[in-house]
Amino acid sequence: MIKRLAIVGVGLIGGSVALALRQAGAVDRIVGAGRSRANLERALALKVIDEIAQDLAAAAQGADLVLLALPVGAIPQALEEIAPCLAEDAVVTDAGSTKGELVASARRILGTVVSRFVPGHPIAGAEKNGVEAARADLFQGRDVILTPLPENPPEWVKRVADMWQTCGAHVDYMDDQGHDRVFAAVSHLPHLAAFSLVEELAGRPERGAFFHYAGSGFRDFTRIAASHPEMWRDIALANREAILAELDAYIANLQAVRNMIRTGDGAALEAHFARAKQARENWVKHRQP
Amino acid sequence: MIKRLAIVGVGLIGGSVALALRQAGAVDRIVGAGRSRANLERALALKVIDEIAQDLAAAAQGADLVLLALPVGAIPQALEEIAPCLAEDAVVTDAGSTKGELVASARRILGTVVSRFVPGHPIAGAEKNGVEAARADLFQGRDVILTPLPENPPEWVKRVADMWQTCGAHVDYMDDQGHDRVFAAVSHLPHLAAFSLVEELAGRPERGAFFHYAGSGFRDFTRIAASHPEMWRDIALANREAILAELDAYIANLQAVRNMIRTGDGAALEAHFARAKQARENWVKHRQP
Repeated sequence: MIKRLAIVGVGLIGGSVALALRQAGAVDRIVGAGRSRANLERALALKVIDEIAQDLAAAAQGADLVLLALPVGAIPQALEEIAPCLAEDAVVTDAGSTKGELVASARRILGTVVSRFVPGHPIAGAEKNGVEAARADLFQGRDVILTPLPENPPEWVKRVADMWQTCGAHVDYMDDQGHDRVFAAVSHLPHLAAFSLVEELAGRPERGAFFHYAGSGFRDFTRIAASHPEMWRDIALANREAILAELDAYIANLQAVRNMIRTGDGAALEAHFARAKQARENWVKHRQP
Repeated sequence: MIKRLAIVGVGLIGGSVALALRQAGAVDRIVGAGRSRANLERALALKVIDEIAQDLAAAAQGADLVLLALPVGAIPQALEEIAPCLAEDAVVTDAGSTKGELVASARRILGTVVSRFVPGHPIAGAEKNGVEAARADLFQGRDVILTPLPENPPEWVKRVADMWQTCGAHVDYMDDQGHDRVFAAVSHLPHLAAFSLVEELAGRPERGAFFHYAGSGFRDFTRIAASHPEMWRDIALANREAILAELDAYIANLQAVRNMIRTGDGAALEAHFARAKQARENWVKHRQP
């Protein structure tokens, strides 16, 4: 049982954790904090939180679990604000989409207190955001990756894992660098590719015809281009090296296809498309969420 | 009323036209032809067609409407085979995804008989193919683009437009070059972008972890990467110039984003993502299929 849960950033993720834990009867009191007073008022009105804290320090005071559900670029500042106020047995976790640079910042900011910080990343979300989009079943059957530090005592890692399991999630463990490389490939790159496609077409004089005739393929391909700009700015900057490597590999692949088209190499094109189709179909069969 | 409809290529598109026209009572007899005897047997067993023709020439004989529902690269050969057997009042149309190069081929092959060829492109389909995937409502509420030639008498254009309207589609008119430029941007480029992303990841040593953690964003982004390799080979080659231009613009956009990330230009990244989000959301509001 969590006695006092502090949620910093009561949006889609933070709000959904609150609703899931409350539904499970796994938390006594939920205190919310964050940048937008209006959002916190809505969260209170929707009974997602029990109380609005004056500031992050006040939210952390007396909390046994602190969840930082913020864009990854805002987490270091939040760690600085809560660090002096953490209770004896408090554990801090986050829901940021990248881990490597954050762990380095946390070590700088927290010193030995970094042992209390158990980094996490729930693989859930939507292109919607804000507390109105929160729902108790958001994490049901979804993966949450924890990237524990060597400094974390196992019982504190377990406290965070228990929280996510109570939300219905499956908890996996990775190291922070491995996590960042994998998500650069399967999440960050697709988002950048979708943003670029829409941004490019939207800037063209023919955009009226383009958007008039865009069909269901375009719809699905670009769904993630409606994702949160600030969150994705932070991810792009925080996972810079891994993302640059993925972008380079992707651009090289597009250049290779360009060359097949330019030289009229139909056999190479068909083989390229067939490898993609096969991999996509295997994935659907074995894994599709 | 169509007295004798010849469908060359009784797959998803050809089969769905057959089912829709039959359901509407708008056709007397449907003759199927194509490369795969096994597929034609299935189409006959499923009562999608009434009769299997020996070859394309036999199918065209006596038909008042001939639909070439083939990958676009196979259409010129089909035009050659049917040309000598066309009835006095026969009209030929197609369902190919590109139009410019096809029109040039048709002029070469058909000479003055090109007046009987009314090019078309139904904006429908799925990553599934084959006659088993055909359904009478596939074109309900969808767009079909016709790109009539100056040589086409209006009543023959109307015969093709009527066929698609009977299938439940909305018929639009464009010129073949304009059609190809628009679809290079909103259809061909997204397909190539999705194929490349999956193909690139599938060739990497870390593919196990990649496909394990790929989530719902990846799922939607890559749905079209399961499309038909031969069909897309033909499209890529038939719409070469427009597609190369789109690929170049897309790669340049990705390079610009790469540069924002490399130089840590958070403001430019956030603005780029916000422009994409805004365009995507406008499109969803006004147009999403």
